[in-house]
Amino acid sequence: MVFLAKTSSPNEWKTVVNAISTLVEEASFEAAAEGLSFRAMDPSHVALVDLDWPNSAFDKYDCDKQFKFTVRVEDLSKLIRRADSGDSIEISSAENDTLLVKMANGYAREFQIHLIESTYGATPLPKLSFNSKIVMTEQTFEKMLSDISVVSDHITIDASAERILFSGKSDAGTGSATLTKGSQDLLELKVKEDSKSIYSIDYLLNITRAAGKAADILTFEYSSKMPLRLTFNLSEKGGKIQFYLAPRIEEK
Amino acid sequence: MVFLAKTSSPNEWKTVVNAISTLVEEASFEAAAEGLSFRAMDPSHVALVDLDWPNSAFDKYDCDKQFKFTVRVEDLSKLIRRADSGDSIEISSAENDTLLVKMANGYAREFQIHLIESTYGATPLPKLSFNSKIVMTEQTFEKMLSDISVVSDHITIDASAERILFSGKSDAGTGSATLTKGSQDLLELKVKEDSKSIYSIDYLLNITRAAGKAADILTFEYSSKMPLRLTFNLSEKGGKIQFYLAPRIEEK
Amino acid sequence: MVFLAKTSSPNEWKTVVNAISTLVEEASFEAAAEGLSFRAMDPSHVALVDLDWPNSAFDKYDCDKQFKFTVRVEDLSKLIRRADSGDSIEISSAENDTLLVKMANGYAREFQIHLIESTYGATPLPKLSFNSKIVMTEQTFEKMLSDISVVSDHITIDASAERILFSGKSDAGTGSATLTKGSQDLLELKVKEDSKSIYSIDYLLNITRAAGKAADILTFEYSSKMPLRLTFNLSEKGGKIQFYLAPRIEEK
Repeated sequence: MVFLAKTSSPNEWKTVVNAISTLVEEASFEAAAEGLSFRAMDPSHVALVDLDWPNSAFDKYDCDKQFKFTVRVEDLSKLIRRADSGDSIEISSAENDTLLVKMANGYAREFQIHLIESTYGATPLPKLSFNSKIVMTEQTFEKMLSDISVVSDHITIDASAERILFSGKSDAGTGSATLTKGSQDLLELKVKEDSKSIYSIDYLLNITRAAGKAADILTFEYSSKMPLRLTFNLSEKGGKIQFYLAPRIEEK
Repeated sequence: MVFLAKTSSPNEWKTVVNAISTLVEEASFEAAAEGLSFRAMDPSHVALVDLDWPNSAFDKYDCDKQFKFTVRVEDLSKLIRRADSGDSIEISSAENDTLLVKMANGYAREFQIHLIESTYGATPLPKLSFNSKIVMTEQTFEKMLSDISVVSDHITIDASAERILFSGKSDAGTGSATLTKGSQDLLELKVKEDSKSIYSIDYLLNITRAAGKAADILTFEYSSKMPLRLTFNLSEKGGKIQFYLAPRIEEK
Repeated sequence: MVFLAKTSSPNEWKTVVNAISTLVEEASFEAAAEGLSFRAMDPSHVALVDLDWPNSAFDKYDCDKQFKFTVRVEDLSKLIRRADSGDSIEISSAENDTLLVKMANGYAREFQIHLIESTYGATPLPKLSFNSKIVMTEQTFEKMLSDISVVSDHITIDASAERILFSGKSDAGTGSATLTKGSQDLLELKVKEDSKSIYSIDYLLNITRAAGKAADILTFEYSSKMPLRLTFNLSEKGGKIQFYLAPRIEEK
């Protein structure tokens, strides 16, 4: 066995597979002694997902040597969806062309899926500094996005020292949602410089719904007319999913 | 502000918008000092909805002068659906071409939708006297309609001193459902003259499901081969939705 | 009345109608003094359902003389679906061309559906002896089938003294699920001779989901490369549904 990773619940894998499936159809994971990672952009190069899952966050983790494996996301997703909440998940490979997925709870299940050729090159992380940092509940973030999605496909996010304002407009009308400092859903609001930027609501809603299953809290960072970064913790034992999204350049 | 109406829950607006959307795509409301009203027929002139929402049924109500505003029902409906059960709803207009919808609970949201030109004239109420009056639970009324809908598109409603009989028939077979005096679901049965009439089940089911969300009890009045009237209370603080439906003339 | 059968709950009829509807569109029931029965194969003659519902399992059962009646399953199904969990169901016929279905609970409902000409001849039961008998929870059986369905349309069932192994494979990969003696979900495992056979998962899943509504436990019997038999109890008062499925001959 070149690589083996075990978690006592299927939730982390459900979150990871859901998050990845919002962006790509084929996923290349990197297993190393330190842990498991994944990084990829969507085909239009507007969004990037970065998974950092350290060995300490697993119940059991072994990796003899660096190992890259690529799966069709749908193949893995169909298996992971079969896991019940009490199932442990063990994923392993013997450096051949298959990935072994074991689930156990009451009765034991074992699946092998074929690995595929990776067609992706390395994806570098963008170098960014963020002027605004917001920590808030995942539920309220998702609600505010959904509110604006009723009137628009794009959202303008405007942060200042005392509040964040989400807004959007279309032919049907306009909408805005405001979260002010002191609200129990807003855990942290740090604004070095007032920031205002426009993003696609679909990307934000999809990743928030997918990655938000695991996390009650998310961190949202951005600067004016710059990419945003969303950070979701994978479990209490560690691991995180980060999502980068390029701003939308406003048409004149 | 020419007009402002606030409720502490979104339920009344959800009921009103749902009920109206079963009949028309554009809705003209009349705001006056006494309250808010709406009246319209469906395009085939078979059914009529009449909303009477007095100022006393709102948490806050202001109307300086009579004001008529017309919205696309779907535009308003999409906004109202975003309200959670704890949200207050404030609807206002400054006599311009927009309607302002505010929701608040935890965080504040504000939407503006465009008003449109009214294409409707005034709709007079039909003058009717009813020989039979039935007060019953909304749930049982909806169930009995659904029962008959399994075998027929039309329902024959037959009321006499001791019972109401719902029945229908088609090529597939026949069905009947009887509610007798003394049943706990039948709160009142007053029959001046035995009444029997045929109506479209679809209209009845749609309005009952839509308007019945707010009301546990409904009042159903009709006479033989005459239109029926359904009355739903909007909330405990007042307001009601009345629905009129023409009978179906039986083919020979 | 030639025939009348009454149950105090709609569950048995829901199970019977669901199970039958997985195989045929028209169903011929046989009412006799001893009880109600039904037997039919699916159009491709791969599967057979056999219903044995003795008079003692009904709350009330009368049958003056042997009586065969045929209904469109969908007609009966639409009626039975209207029954709430507290409704009694009374089905009767006066040897004419209609079936009378009465439901009562709070208010009384009565439906008549047209009987149709039977186009089916008698279906003899296959004569089979089974080398392996497994009694297990319906839930786990359904889960194991669903697990394998993720990777394959067919399932290989392999029973030996100590365990049952479900497995399948396709281009996407392979899967297996094992239930071992001692598991709380495996109530009985009796293997006279190791048995291994391949069946269609769709047939098994459909009948298990349909007939399994009524039964927590099912009995599964088969021999190598021979048909299987699934037995579901209809209620605690008696009656059972048996399902036979031919094996799939493996392509070379």
